[in-house]
Amino acid sequence: MANLTLTTFDWVPEMPRSFVRDLRVRWALEEAALPYRVASVPFGDRSAAHFAHQPFGQVPWLTDGDVSIFESGAILLHLGERSAALMPADPRGHSEAIQWVFAALNSVEMASLPWSMFKFIGDAGGTPGAKFVDEFLQIRLKYLEPVLAGREWLAGSFSVADILMSDVLRPVDRFDGLAAHPACRDYVARATARPAFVKARADQMAHFAAADAARAGA
Amino acid sequence: MANLTLTTFDWVPEMPRSFVRDLRVRWALEEAALPYRVASVPFGDRSAAHFAHQPFGQVPWLTDGDVSIFESGAILLHLGERSAALMPADPRGHSEAIQWVFAALNSVEMASLPWSMFKFIGDAGGTPGAKFVDEFLQIRLKYLEPVLAGREWLAGSFSVADILMSDVLRPVDRFDGLAAHPACRDYVARATARPAFVKARADQMAHFAAADAARAGA
Repeated sequence: MANLTLTTFDWVPEMPRSFVRDLRVRWALEEAALPYRVASVPFGDRSAAHFAHQPFGQVPWLTDGDVSIFESGAILLHLGERSAALMPADPRGHSEAIQWVFAALNSVEMASLPWSMFKFIGDAGGTPGAKFVDEFLQIRLKYLEPVLAGREWLAGSFSVADILMSDVLRPVDRFDGLAAHPACRDYVARATARPAFVKARADQMAHFAAADAARAGA
Repeated sequence: MANLTLTTFDWVPEMPRSFVRDLRVRWALEEAALPYRVASVPFGDRSAAHFAHQPFGQVPWLTDGDVSIFESGAILLHLGERSAALMPADPRGHSEAIQWVFAALNSVEMASLPWSMFKFIGDAGGTPGAKFVDEFLQIRLKYLEPVLAGREWLAGSFSVADILMSDVLRPVDRFDGLAAHPACRDYVARATARPAFVKARADQMAHFAAADAARAGA
């Protein structure tokens, strides 16, 4: 039986809730029906022990027995190796899933995260930098759109690639940035309607709400 | 014997030369001493066949027999599985290398690429967006610095993680953005002094120079 512990922050502000990256790991674990427990580290005061597990002081990390893994992409590949619910078993599908994992995290999120941060901080355009950030996202969506119009999931069957690709598109959707790309928008809706996502998001929200309650009672 | 073909653009403008991502693949292939040939696709007019190999219309992709792989991260993991020169053989080192591959491409390049693009287009600061981009890079470098001060290579021995991490830091170094982080700067210098990098960069420069000569002669 798996001995899996997912570590996330004890608390975060309202804004990032339901977007903290432990969600990706929770989602994968729920899809694979792997039992796990959740541990917390302080959001405010990050210890040397925290940096020993996650060198950038971020979350999540996963421990699997005596192995500790950081980076959501690396964690999902690790889990993908142990569940056919997360990774196609045939060599071609397996290879395609890995390619789309990197496409999500390097080709798409490198554009979608700065774009959504610019929306959040209200730098909506006009500067050369804001123009670059918007054009960078638009070119990625332009080419992702026909891919997602032609298939239900990226690598034949649902895989960790879909967890990551839909999750890196969610912040864009939050600021209504997928309106001109209906296949991308429908893909996010399809992925986030899965019971494993719904449970993972609810669990993350409950985790941080419990911290609010503990603070209020302290 | 390997039957490896790396595909890149036939030509690119001066600015991105020595930074086109086929360099990462050339470097890995040289480190592993794997024989390969280089094929070209038009930079200007990108065909349906190009998009069939690389859905975003970018380069590189690698064919290995009848398997075609896009995303430099996926290509390097694929090559890492076939050469101990690219990936530690012990399970812990192997797992660490994969984590640092994702750290390079998702935690660091997501900050370093927008930062270097802002430098290139001259959006040097003052706007909330430019401030975000600079702070995003600085927080990553702050925590990468002690890691690189404490070890020669990221995962015990030189690996694909070092190819990627040094390559995502190169554009920052190009704009003198590592001056306050000497361990990061020394790491880039150490990595790019390797004969495999020197050959890979010279080969990329020669590839595009040959296209200039062909154009001039046409």
